[in-house]
Amino acid sequence: MPEGDGDLDTAGLLEANASFYDAFERKDLDTMSALWERTSRVVCTHPGWSTLRGWAHVQASFFAMFDAPGTLQFVLTDATAHTSGDTGWVAVDENLLGDQAGSTVAALNVFVRDHTGSWRVVAHHGSIVNSPPPKFVRREGS
Amino acid sequence: MPEGDGDLDTAGLLEANASFYDAFERKDLDTMSALWERTSRVVCTHPGWSTLRGWAHVQASFFAMFDAPGTLQFVLTDATAHTSGDTGWVAVDENLLGDQAGSTVAALNVFVRDHTGSWRVVAHHGSIVNSPPPKFVRREGS
Repeated sequence: MPEGDGDLDTAGLLEANASFYDAFERKDLDTMSALWERTSRVVCTHPGWSTLRGWAHVQASFFAMFDAPGTLQFVLTDATAHTSGDTGWVAVDENLLGDQAGSTVAALNVFVRDHTGSWRVVAHHGSIVNSPPPKFVRREGS
Repeated sequence: MPEGDGDLDTAGLLEANASFYDAFERKDLDTMSALWERTSRVVCTHPGWSTLRGWAHVQASFFAMFDAPGTLQFVLTDATAHTSGDTGWVAVDENLLGDQAGSTVAALNVFVRDHTGSWRVVAHHGSIVNSPPPKFVRREGS
């Protein structure tokens, strides 16, 4: 059974999730770094990329992206947050403005609470949405 | 600090992850259903799709995929598993054979242990890898 989905838990989780995108928009590597767990177990998959494993590779990817010209603005929709003990996950749609206007990235972000009670990112996976949501109809008798 | 990354924990997690792809290959909806938590908090993002939220939508997606012609075979590489309490996540590359031969899907799978101690999927996110892993070099003095 689901557990730990208290309002306080998910509110804090959504706040940490919002901070992630805020740091992304501001190209703020220090804040972004502080939001991650900074261990070898973190993973990050940017849209279309291979998965980066471990903080050294993840940090280098943000450094390169933040160092590149152009800006990225996110309008977040459909953020849903759930927790299980000291772990939480957020599914959110990143609607991009700026150079990549019009595209939507579906993202899954996983957080683990540290010893201070703060949520730290341990996994980020984003992928471009190519199509509108499919509508499935389960047939009778199946 | 990371915790709960015991060999037994991650071995069970990798086993549950392998079962997921085994059920996928065999188009076995019953086994696939048993592997998921089957609650409203589960999320699933198939490559290029919008995120499906809640078991009803997720199950319908597997039903539709398993009902379609063609087969999908996975060669899994680079599976890394980590746990935090009763939650675990696996990053894995799905190398596809069959109709989609040659493509690789980067996947992130999140599991939560149920009351029997079995790992259940709460989140699956897959995305096509468009490019080889980038090589970043952090410049001196930055």
